[in-house]
Amino acid sequence: MSHPGTLTEHGFDPHFLNKYASLMAGGNGYLGIRASHEEDYTEQVRGMYLAGIYHRATADDINELINLPDIIGMRIELNGEIFSLLAGTIVEYRRELKMKNGELLRDLVWQSPLGGRYHIISRRQMAASPLQLVISQLEITPLDIPCHLQIMTGIDATQTNFGRQHLNETEVRVFEQQYLQGSYRTTDNQQEVVITSYCQLPDNVRSSFSAKNRRLMQHIDVSLESHHTFQMSKISWVASSLDNGYSAETFATDCLNHLKQQVQHGYSTITARSEQCWQTYWQKARVELDSDQPQDQQALDFALYHLAGMTPAHSELCSIAAKGLTGEGYKGHVFWDTEIFLLPFHLLTQPKIARQLLRYRYLHLQQAEEKAHRNGYRGALFPWESAFSGEEETPEFAAINIRTGLRQRVASAIAEHHIVADIAYATVGYYQATHDHDFMRQEGVTLLQKTAEFWLSRATEVNGRWEILNVIGPDEYTEHINNNAYTNYMAHYNVQQALAFMQQYGKIDTAFEIQANDFLHRLYLPEPDDHHVIPQDDSFFSKPTIDLSRYKAHQGSQSILLDYSRAEVNEMQILKQADVIMLLHLLPELFDAQIKAANFAYYEPRTIHDSSLSKAIHAIIASQQQSELAYQLYQQACLIDLGPDPHSSDEGIHAASLGAIWLGALFGFAGLHYQQGELHLNPRLPIQWQQLRFPLNWRGQQLFFTLTQNQIQIDGVWSEPLTIYIAGQAHTITQPSTINRNENNENCYCA
Amino acid sequence: MSHPGTLTEHGFDPHFLNKYASLMAGGNGYLGIRASHEEDYTEQVRGMYLAGIYHRATADDINELINLPDIIGMRIELNGEIFSLLAGTIVEYRRELKMKNGELLRDLVWQSPLGGRYHIISRRQMAASPLQLVISQLEITPLDIPCHLQIMTGIDATQTNFGRQHLNETEVRVFEQQYLQGSYRTTDNQQEVVITSYCQLPDNVRSSFSAKNRRLMQHIDVSLESHHTFQMSKISWVASSLDNGYSAETFATDCLNHLKQQVQHGYSTITARSEQCWQTYWQKARVELDSDQPQDQQALDFALYHLAGMTPAHSELCSIAAKGLTGEGYKGHVFWDTEIFLLPFHLLTQPKIARQLLRYRYLHLQQAEEKAHRNGYRGALFPWESAFSGEEETPEFAAINIRTGLRQRVASAIAEHHIVADIAYATVGYYQATHDHDFMRQEGVTLLQKTAEFWLSRATEVNGRWEILNVIGPDEYTEHINNNAYTNYMAHYNVQQALAFMQQYGKIDTAFEIQANDFLHRLYLPEPDDHHVIPQDDSFFSKPTIDLSRYKAHQGSQSILLDYSRAEVNEMQILKQADVIMLLHLLPELFDAQIKAANFAYYEPRTIHDSSLSKAIHAIIASQQQSELAYQLYQQACLIDLGPDPHSSDEGIHAASLGAIWLGALFGFAGLHYQQGELHLNPRLPIQWQQLRFPLNWRGQQLFFTLTQNQIQIDGVWSEPLTIYIAGQAHTITQPSTINRNENNENCYCA
Repeated sequence: MSHPGTLTEHGFDPHFLNKYASLMAGGNGYLGIRASHEEDYTEQVRGMYLAGIYHRATADDINELINLPDIIGMRIELNGEIFSLLAGTIVEYRRELKMKNGELLRDLVWQSPLGGRYHIISRRQMAASPLQLVISQLEITPLDIPCHLQIMTGIDATQTNFGRQHLNETEVRVFEQQYLQGSYRTTDNQQEVVITSYCQLPDNVRSSFSAKNRRLMQHIDVSLESHHTFQMSKISWVASSLDNGYSAETFATDCLNHLKQQVQHGYSTITARSEQCWQTYWQKARVELDSDQPQDQQALDFALYHLAGMTPAHSELCSIAAKGLTGEGYKGHVFWDTEIFLLPFHLLTQPKIARQLLRYRYLHLQQAEEKAHRNGYRGALFPWESAFSGEEETPEFAAINIRTGLRQRVASAIAEHHIVADIAYATVGYYQATHDHDFMRQEGVTLLQKTAEFWLSRATEVNGRWEILNVIGPDEYTEHINNNAYTNYMAHYNVQQALAFMQQYGKIDTAFEIQANDFLHRLYLPEPDDHHVIPQDDSFFSKPTIDLSRYKAHQGSQSILLDYSRAEVNEMQILKQADVIMLLHLLPELFDAQIKAANFAYYEPRTIHDSSLSKAIHAIIASQQQSELAYQLYQQACLIDLGPDPHSSDEGIHAASLGAIWLGALFGFAGLHYQQGELHLNPRLPIQWQQLRFPLNWRGQQLFFTLTQNQIQIDGVWSEPLTIYIAGQAHTITQPSTINRNENNENCYCA
Repeated sequence: MSHPGTLTEHGFDPHFLNKYASLMAGGNGYLGIRASHEEDYTEQVRGMYLAGIYHRATADDINELINLPDIIGMRIELNGEIFSLLAGTIVEYRRELKMKNGELLRDLVWQSPLGGRYHIISRRQMAASPLQLVISQLEITPLDIPCHLQIMTGIDATQTNFGRQHLNETEVRVFEQQYLQGSYRTTDNQQEVVITSYCQLPDNVRSSFSAKNRRLMQHIDVSLESHHTFQMSKISWVASSLDNGYSAETFATDCLNHLKQQVQHGYSTITARSEQCWQTYWQKARVELDSDQPQDQQALDFALYHLAGMTPAHSELCSIAAKGLTGEGYKGHVFWDTEIFLLPFHLLTQPKIARQLLRYRYLHLQQAEEKAHRNGYRGALFPWESAFSGEEETPEFAAINIRTGLRQRVASAIAEHHIVADIAYATVGYYQATHDHDFMRQEGVTLLQKTAEFWLSRATEVNGRWEILNVIGPDEYTEHINNNAYTNYMAHYNVQQALAFMQQYGKIDTAFEIQANDFLHRLYLPEPDDHHVIPQDDSFFSKPTIDLSRYKAHQGSQSILLDYSRAEVNEMQILKQADVIMLLHLLPELFDAQIKAANFAYYEPRTIHDSSLSKAIHAIIASQQQSELAYQLYQQACLIDLGPDPHSSDEGIHAASLGAIWLGALFGFAGLHYQQGELHLNPRLPIQWQQLRFPLNWRGQQLFFTLTQNQIQIDGVWSEPLTIYIAGQAHTITQPSTINRNENNENCYCA
């Protein structure tokens, strides 16, 4: 395997500060830190977040991922001039994120307005192990004249979530004239965060300490000769009351001791250990391309870099936030994105993580059952948005309409119910790819049964059939409709799979069986019309259409809402994102090629792609028919974060869309499918790709695939004969093999 | 009267951002706004404060003056370049505060890093009437090339008090596509603040609105030809639930209507009306000098400018914060500063304000009596620090010692009791200068009686005499001592005056009379020793001395606490500030010239002047003996805010020290005194001053004084014969007169 590449920022532009702060953010699933510069800029939003550390500032607010006290900031003064890239001259500048190990490097030469040039290098890394550890290094070399260097850095608890404060500063300390420690509690006193920092300085460097206005700071004062380099490291330990073994009495002391131990290990030992973890990760996960277009490989590396950083693999008490741990968008809440867009990647690379993500849902079944009960249903109605408690976190009302003063009720929590089936779908997928009976016997079957029970109670009998009324499907520009195709098919699948697995594990009861069978036989599943198009819902076809080209040109910005109210959009054939197309992706075996083509042709022109979840899924469906269009859509999907818009990612990367970059390559161009229990591949590489290589963990076996348009090479070691379907045809192999297929893609033979 | 001058900042230096933001702050006693630039800078602390609008963020915090949502900030983009004086080139720069009318003007030419030059002028003013009104103007002229100008401004509620958030955003609105309104409530739901803003724009200028992350913003987009000027005005109405006639139901609408009315008046009408108010103020208050040193006049104008801005003359529910309304230092709390350092100025220029400041204490007698009761005393023990409620606001513990983790108990609330006598002293002074029987009969006598009762209960009988044990005098480097001379003499004065006024108004009761007389006869009043020096307290003379020169060289910085603990400082002859000297200033008639000279000679070398309250009081005592030294001390006192230290005033101007600039001129160099009921003057001008002119309101009569070293001219109109003591000799005049005095300063004659 070659190394994952770097993401490079070639120049400094204040318009792009927050885009790059998100794109180059560091994370290890436990802790995330935005790639802010050491020095402050007025529009730069610093951010450090701990998975699961949410708080509601006031009763009128909602739980949000707390923006923690900052440890990255450094005020650097060079001969009395405050270092800022806005002032003086940038002689050289390069910033890069090394995706192979998560190191963020900035290397620049700055000429002060007072005249001297300075070479400034900074490095930063979040340790892959232990997760609480953050390390950084700063080097400054005056190139022309001696320098009086002053640095102020420490722990800055003036950080807020855009003005909302969640933490009380309970104690600030300096131990042994070198270790800084700030202890913070959420204002509701439920969680504690302790940050401990140490600056490793050259001998004879003076420093002093101050604590004022929520800032615990170390002031470093150095006289440097020209061409001599000052180097310092800052090592921090960021921990919370969610940590294993947390004890309120000893926590601060424990943190201090942990930090001291790491300080003894030293910077290079820590980075070497971290690099080893990253290397293991990439071996298990990296997708490699031979492509004419190098940005395709970069997009995949970028996606997988963030997929590692966003995922709280250390704890089944947390799941994946919509922006990972890179920003405050969507308040750090967890959506269906996790199960549908992100879980498959983990399932096929590190299935233990997929298990944990499902365990997160399982552990919050009680809250889901309570929500169902409150809404008059049975079973489990999982929250549309969740955080740490598993309660529904969707705001009851949208932001105020500043013109009318009215707040529109947010309907997702009360109607976007497909998330229930999405969790069931992921549960089945988990089983199919792992055959993890231990999980399935207990958590899996329970999840399937409770979700199925929800649908049984959710359906309404209309003229002798079961219908599912008043829902929102994946397309959120169409609210409160009846018999959304996606929802109905997915609910059907949910109940069907529950029945099957309950029977398989002997957990069936007759009443459920009777009701489930009745539901499966009489649930209305919208059929394709004469033109092979499946109606998105009962009323969709009756609505007018408008020319969407100008909104599609500004996709992702919801610009249509500047011209039309939500209510007006609701009454037109306008899709925010994949809906029927999403269904075709998840349950492909239910629909033939003609139906897929017809629905793509019908719905794509009506879809603005204002959701980041849309493009890559369209690419997957397109890949089955039109390779060139699929590749175009895929490349556009790769630009959701990496594109030129300076503000697309200000509030964090788009977690689900990064998952979808992986989905697009594997479910799209590799033709991967396994939901029915068999491992399917069907390569349909874009002509720009000569080869596609990826590892897959299939039922405990570590496989490596190398795909070209006409050949599939399977490497790895496995004990039982392995059956793989290539373009629908079964191949059973016992050792590494290469499978060729002939030109009409229908007959293959093993070599 | 000539016009008050300007305070000018000749260049832009980021190190001085917060100093000038305080020095050039605008205020009208109701509202204060720091002189932040329109554009953001990372270290620039914006601030807007409403008198009386305090809040305690959490139970562990203390009440602080809330830093309100910002209306000053403007993000200006010129041909895509974000305007910042750190970038590009500053071709011309001048910022000035016009003290005659409070207008803040910035006039600059900036060359963008992209090349074009822009002439940018901004003006800002807080209306003197109505107090809720803030107006500003922005002019931009591209000098070289056409310009695509983008401005974002509005109401930014991400403001915090160094990370503490006090306000919930309850509603944000845009009315009629032009009026922005944000409504905020303190998180304890006790107070409401509503900010309404309007931008007056040239016709055909497009703008749009957004509300996100606590920012309600107007986005203005203009295409400008070269040499064409874009001008906009922003008019804002900032109001709170403390306003007269507040009604929760109609408040937001009322605010909108008030703003609309002002918008109709227009910018120039508002500024003209405001200027009129300022002119009236300066006529009543301005002190004018003919001096060799122009900075003396500037210091006086600066002091009086801020004395107007800091004083909540509109409401007796508020008093003057230690930093006025210019910053967050001392959390906006009210100290003895008000009665001893600030009230005399108001008393002799606008006595109604002095009355209101005393009414503030009177209205909070209940809280003072409760505090006395809780501490085991009778009468009224006023809080050392107070805010809106009149409760004690002094933090129970000082900031944590970051090395030991211990918090030292703040002793001021439990021992700095002289504030009780200080309030009584100001009450008597108010009567003497006004003969306001209405006030004295009710509020005045009650204040004197309740404060006297406190001292009667506070004293301890020791060996047959009353002593006052375990106090802190004005010198806060000496804590928990017995018989602080200042405290004992002032307590004696308090009881003596209470007795006299209670008798005068027939409000005496026998029990009080007996106890008070006993107290007055047997209270221990420390006598001067053989060297004529009054012991600051019982133990002071027994303590060792150290060389203070290096700490005096860094006075104001409390640098001694870097070398010694507070406990150690307490055990040495080290004064933070005037203590016995303060006593000599307040009760000068009790001590002869020899005693004054001896005490000055003894205590000044032992005083670091780490308090801003110290230097000017020393100048007053010195002026009675050594004119040159007095002038030196006075000039140093004038530099507390205006001096070269870039960070001396970051957290706001030093309100009491500004009052002391006026005290130094009048009580020092003019020899003013009136506490005993007669108006005394005794000019002892420094040789640098040829003439000193000032108005005085004496018992309802508006007098104007013109002083030279040997002549006093009195102008004005008065009905009753007016008796003035010049250098101790009475002169009764019935019309404007000039009084000469002979060279030995003892005999004068009227001309």
